[in-house]
Amino acid sequence: MSKKMNMILFSGDYDKALAALILANSARELGIDVSMFFAFWGLFLLRNPNKITDEEKTNYEKLFARMTPKGPEDLPLSKMNFSGLGKTFLKEMMKDDDAPPLEAFLKGARKKGVKFYGCKLSMEVMGFKKEELIPEVEIIDAKGYIKDAVDSDIQLFI
Amino acid sequence: MSKKMNMILFSGDYDKALAALILANSARELGIDVSMFFAFWGLFLLRNPNKITDEEKTNYEKLFARMTPKGPEDLPLSKMNFSGLGKTFLKEMMKDDDAPPLEAFLKGARKKGVKFYGCKLSMEVMGFKKEELIPEVEIIDAKGYIKDAVDSDIQLFI
Amino acid sequence: MSKKMNMILFSGDYDKALAALILANSARELGIDVSMFFAFWGLFLLRNPNKITDEEKTNYEKLFARMTPKGPEDLPLSKMNFSGLGKTFLKEMMKDDDAPPLEAFLKGARKKGVKFYGCKLSMEVMGFKKEELIPEVEIIDAKGYIKDAVDSDIQLFI
Repeated sequence: MSKKMNMILFSGDYDKALAALILANSARELGIDVSMFFAFWGLFLLRNPNKITDEEKTNYEKLFARMTPKGPEDLPLSKMNFSGLGKTFLKEMMKDDDAPPLEAFLKGARKKGVKFYGCKLSMEVMGFKKEELIPEVEIIDAKGYIKDAVDSDIQLFI
Repeated sequence: MSKKMNMILFSGDYDKALAALILANSARELGIDVSMFFAFWGLFLLRNPNKITDEEKTNYEKLFARMTPKGPEDLPLSKMNFSGLGKTFLKEMMKDDDAPPLEAFLKGARKKGVKFYGCKLSMEVMGFKKEELIPEVEIIDAKGYIKDAVDSDIQLFI
Repeated sequence: MSKKMNMILFSGDYDKALAALILANSARELGIDVSMFFAFWGLFLLRNPNKITDEEKTNYEKLFARMTPKGPEDLPLSKMNFSGLGKTFLKEMMKDDDAPPLEAFLKGARKKGVKFYGCKLSMEVMGFKKEELIPEVEIIDAKGYIKDAVDSDIQLFI
């Protein structure tokens, strides 16, 4: 029977998203099923910068939508961000080693059949609409996450 | 046989505590046993603001007790806290969606029979007394945590 | 059959490294096998301050090597670091309770046979050489980590 890996991505940091997506890609290459549940700040990774809308949003939600990162390359580092300088630094070091950027790992995960789940409550609170995210995302609640996690062989909170 | 979920709450952030308690409540509603082990900053969530005492504390411990968050609603956000502005913002957005505040999820978890464990070493180092925390907390050491976690179907470090 | 615990240490924070190593020591004392996979900032913990070299490094890598923590006692706190004041504070409180410092828990883990793995991609990107780390470290890639984690009874992302 095939193995399964489940990750919550709670963090909205570039480096943690990178770690999560590298693990997702690696697990798929080993034939392991992968589910990712994006909650809170983690949802920023799934935003499509070209699909952001003000429709049907409260003033708080509109302001929040503008103040927060819009998609993968907009995420800050968890440490040593130095107003973006640290991230530029990391990306330069990655380029020197031919390591692909975050966006490429996200594309890889989408192609390789990683399951993308968005947290229903987080979506509602932040005012994000399904149409503003990458199309693969299915919206489920915390119980949906738990049911998926309890049947997995690896669970991580990132 | 019933399933079991184990979480370490290491973080003292409002948003991470919220995530942990939403998961705890959801798992209990699915009939899954839940253990939460509170270590380091995570212990702040369990403090009862009305039971804080200076008795039998060193000067470091007294100062530390005053400088750190006293119970659930006192916790800061992990990101975009902006001296509390970001948290007010989040709480307003939650209210708009009828999402209960952190304190309500903590009460829910207590009523639903989530097991609350406090880390012995963290308690000793920070100088917290059992009487300063919510009454459900049982103090155990890291080995106690490991024994509980190794028999669980889900383990998360939050 | 013996049980197994697997941790990724992604964080480069003193307090999180402390938590991870306390768990590693406790698990070994219970006869549980322990693997630790050090990625990104987590690698700082394994640096030997006396073995840091500039050889075969790009300018970015040299600068990065100098700007970042050099071994266990050089790591900052994840919260309330206050330019190191918070850490001094924590260490004083630990001393008062006869709790050993981070370095002692690292030594304990090495003596007790914890398996130390360094993330290949992180090493390459950051320009760290195997010789700059503690000698027990074996370098593996993300797939190696996944294979180890999927056969473990506990997996944590720290």
